[in-house]
Amino acid sequence: MAGYTLVAREHKQEDTIIRLGEVVIGGSAKVYMAGPCAVESREQLLTTAKLVRQGGAQMLRGGAFKPRTSPYDFQGLAEKGLEYMAEAREATGLKIVTEVMDISAVPVVAQYADILQIGARNMQNFALLKTVGRLDKPVLLKRGLSATLEEWLQAAEYILYEGNQQVIFCERGIRTFTTHTRNTLDMSVVPVIKQVSHLPVIIDPSHGTGRRDLVESMALAGLAAGADGILVEVHPNPEEALCDGPQSLNPKEYFSLMQKLRAMEDFLFRLARPRAVGE
Amino acid sequence: MAGYTLVAREHKQEDTIIRLGEVVIGGSAKVYMAGPCAVESREQLLTTAKLVRQGGAQMLRGGAFKPRTSPYDFQGLAEKGLEYMAEAREATGLKIVTEVMDISAVPVVAQYADILQIGARNMQNFALLKTVGRLDKPVLLKRGLSATLEEWLQAAEYILYEGNQQVIFCERGIRTFTTHTRNTLDMSVVPVIKQVSHLPVIIDPSHGTGRRDLVESMALAGLAAGADGILVEVHPNPEEALCDGPQSLNPKEYFSLMQKLRAMEDFLFRLARPRAVGE
Amino acid sequence: MAGYTLVAREHKQEDTIIRLGEVVIGGSAKVYMAGPCAVESREQLLTTAKLVRQGGAQMLRGGAFKPRTSPYDFQGLAEKGLEYMAEAREATGLKIVTEVMDISAVPVVAQYADILQIGARNMQNFALLKTVGRLDKPVLLKRGLSATLEEWLQAAEYILYEGNQQVIFCERGIRTFTTHTRNTLDMSVVPVIKQVSHLPVIIDPSHGTGRRDLVESMALAGLAAGADGILVEVHPNPEEALCDGPQSLNPKEYFSLMQKLRAMEDFLFRLARPRAVGE
Amino acid sequence: MAGYTLVAREHKQEDTIIRLGEVVIGGSAKVYMAGPCAVESREQLLTTAKLVRQGGAQMLRGGAFKPRTSPYDFQGLAEKGLEYMAEAREATGLKIVTEVMDISAVPVVAQYADILQIGARNMQNFALLKTVGRLDKPVLLKRGLSATLEEWLQAAEYILYEGNQQVIFCERGIRTFTTHTRNTLDMSVVPVIKQVSHLPVIIDPSHGTGRRDLVESMALAGLAAGADGILVEVHPNPEEALCDGPQSLNPKEYFSLMQKLRAMEDFLFRLARPRAVGE
Repeated sequence: MAGYTLVAREHKQEDTIIRLGEVVIGGSAKVYMAGPCAVESREQLLTTAKLVRQGGAQMLRGGAFKPRTSPYDFQGLAEKGLEYMAEAREATGLKIVTEVMDISAVPVVAQYADILQIGARNMQNFALLKTVGRLDKPVLLKRGLSATLEEWLQAAEYILYEGNQQVIFCERGIRTFTTHTRNTLDMSVVPVIKQVSHLPVIIDPSHGTGRRDLVESMALAGLAAGADGILVEVHPNPEEALCDGPQSLNPKEYFSLMQKLRAMEDFLFRLARPRAVGE
Repeated sequence: MAGYTLVAREHKQEDTIIRLGEVVIGGSAKVYMAGPCAVESREQLLTTAKLVRQGGAQMLRGGAFKPRTSPYDFQGLAEKGLEYMAEAREATGLKIVTEVMDISAVPVVAQYADILQIGARNMQNFALLKTVGRLDKPVLLKRGLSATLEEWLQAAEYILYEGNQQVIFCERGIRTFTTHTRNTLDMSVVPVIKQVSHLPVIIDPSHGTGRRDLVESMALAGLAAGADGILVEVHPNPEEALCDGPQSLNPKEYFSLMQKLRAMEDFLFRLARPRAVGE
Repeated sequence: MAGYTLVAREHKQEDTIIRLGEVVIGGSAKVYMAGPCAVESREQLLTTAKLVRQGGAQMLRGGAFKPRTSPYDFQGLAEKGLEYMAEAREATGLKIVTEVMDISAVPVVAQYADILQIGARNMQNFALLKTVGRLDKPVLLKRGLSATLEEWLQAAEYILYEGNQQVIFCERGIRTFTTHTRNTLDMSVVPVIKQVSHLPVIIDPSHGTGRRDLVESMALAGLAAGADGILVEVHPNPEEALCDGPQSLNPKEYFSLMQKLRAMEDFLFRLARPRAVGE
Repeated sequence: MAGYTLVAREHKQEDTIIRLGEVVIGGSAKVYMAGPCAVESREQLLTTAKLVRQGGAQMLRGGAFKPRTSPYDFQGLAEKGLEYMAEAREATGLKIVTEVMDISAVPVVAQYADILQIGARNMQNFALLKTVGRLDKPVLLKRGLSATLEEWLQAAEYILYEGNQQVIFCERGIRTFTTHTRNTLDMSVVPVIKQVSHLPVIIDPSHGTGRRDLVESMALAGLAAGADGILVEVHPNPEEALCDGPQSLNPKEYFSLMQKLRAMEDFLFRLARPRAVGE
């Protein structure tokens, strides 16, 4: 009935913890991933990477292959973008996460990325799921715009079934009738996934709202809901971003956010140890 | 275009603060409202009210007139239920909030309640909005299951337009395609309402999820998102509740929740004063 | 479990047929109801009524009490509007259907109307359902914007439970993520209602799409899906309508529509009698 | 703004008509495609193909590569399934339409299929869209479960932009809050697509409802709404189908459907020529 087994908590009691050198995902500490929607140029990316590092995130996000609704929109720098990502990793020590859009690009993306991202529109691209399921690299699996929790878990099952046990769920908002946000961030999936699965789950408040001014409150709420980390878009100059400018933080907003998220993380850590609260 | 004026921040810069004796809604402290879905008996209500008081909430919620999907479901104790609510107020000092379902019941409900609740199904019952708009009592206006933010603000405008400036918004989940929760709690409306309106906004994680096991994480997330308070269902024995048992907290869960919410409130208070963080 | 009994086909095998003089709803012939969104003036209504009569519809629709999202929108002519409706009935022989928005207006609306309409926003206004349930007049029950089929059937059950067995369902579109239409007309409820209930069901393609240019195709589709009739908005001059102008047909469009609907009705009548097809 | 050009009616005034030998899609006659959800065996497919032919449809549908929510569900016969499809074409003269799920399978599917289907979950698999855009074969582009009309048109634009001008839109239901059907068939896109685009559009009432008992009424409604054809699932023994049994017609239902659809087609043809109506 459920259609999934390997992702279930029944199958594996203890939390899955994913390690990338010093970066730990799914443990007691939170993971922060930040960066631009798209890699636009070497300079833009290196500048952003340094900001991201300075703010305290452990991972750099950035798209080299961009899924765009219209063929007339900027489609990404492709492998050149991956090279810049790798260079930014060298320069900053940040691990990198980037999207892979189709099976033909898996080898090249896997060559550069520390984590491969499967985007919302590809959540049920089963050939792609199977292909990344044969890799030995973690996969960030975004929720589809209209995916039920069951469908999302089953999409992850495709990856684990092929052998790759390192999947990170990422809630990025679902499509509803509302219009005040680009998508509706479904915060409730966080505690539900922690119940039914052993895999980590993070929140993307940038896509989840589409509005820069809502990122901070939703990111704080995401941690409070139990998320293992936060993925946000930041750009040195959001007004000039080639994609998703309206939802990208500027550097000042990003630094402020990171300071608050670390304070929230610290608070939640103590809250989970009752004696420590209010000390 | 917007269709509302009086509820807008442009119309009134400072936050509206609603005072009921010592209870303050919309100020720097949070408000907690707890109680059963329905008033079932004098004993059930008084027992619950004492628990609610003990846990630290300032207000008792409880339905005397119940909007039920089927005519064959329990419809509430009507005025007898209101009498029990008033008795519970006497016994505990808690203020009381209860739903009014139609204009004919406004006088009797207004006679007993400290705050009148307009339920989700009545958010666009314009005759009811106008009638409570002529009262001198605060109104808790729940969001309709498929109401856009604009429609919700305009519903509040009906109340303010009639003279009553004391409206509290309550997000209780919207209807989407998801099935893992009863409704989808739209956390993003909290910061948006704080931006565009001067009126307070609270979160109802009980209806917002329909699942007792998700109430705590969503309530914490709600405060982190900036809500002015939390409304939760608690029952001495949820398994025997005449309505909404699956989403009602038992006393132990309620006490644990309140302890964590107060810790979160304290943390958020310090977070808003940067120097104090991490002291 | 189902929460309804009296509306069920199990309870009453044969179709419920509602008769208003010569107008028959739920029988082998279709019913057509047309008129303006709102009664705006005596002249506007009488002009429209004559057009409606000329086009061949049997009933005149028109709102005297208007549920409007914003308090600043035109709220209707109230009882004066009802008087004009009655006068139009006298002048044309059309039966009249008009909305009642709250229990206090039931007596006056019932005094004038042949059929009382419960609007989408009031589908779960249980006090109103109970009140019209005690009348001896048919009720047109529109589907709520986010009502499931079960909830809609249960809303009708409230009316039948009080004694009034004359309910007509009206599908008028549900709220979804789509933006090319105002609502999404859920055509599939038509055959489902015919299966599970003995009550008639009609389609409102005007609200169901919000676009004049889609009314004809959706009305034809509605009959093909098995609806017992069609409710459409028509206005002598849609550009000047005080509400819903963009979805109101002009007279020429209305006449064309009626001609096609009658042809479709005739075709479907023969289709249901296999021997006659293609004769 | 719109994000599409080549698919627009502004770009090409006259309707695009797709010809596959004697089969014409988008002209004055309707196209009917029928067959099983999945090719299960040689015998099952040949039996079904003969039924499909006998009933009067011009094309055989059948999945060799199946997108399944769970990795534990039947995944299709792959190339062996395509061979059976080709054999069925030989045996019956029916043209064949079958799904291609990823770019690596495009060559083999294109070798067998007359029309390549892009499934709902792949509507924004841009690599796949680009790849089929370089073929000289028609593409049936199903609407994504939560795709807006704009997104769907832009997905088609990807195909036309690469050179392939032969795209057929297929509405197969969207995801909404309703539960009485598997999806909600959005009938209104049919007339809207005919307005804004020159490409043909068909309806899939099987996926659009998920219920065999609703297929006939929705198919008739689809033609009445202006669709250029109908795609339905039929199986010699739906109870034993390896996928989508509940929505597959049995042979008797299929024959009855086809008879009614042809009568409807004939009626609509005459309706569009006013003088002929009622003759």
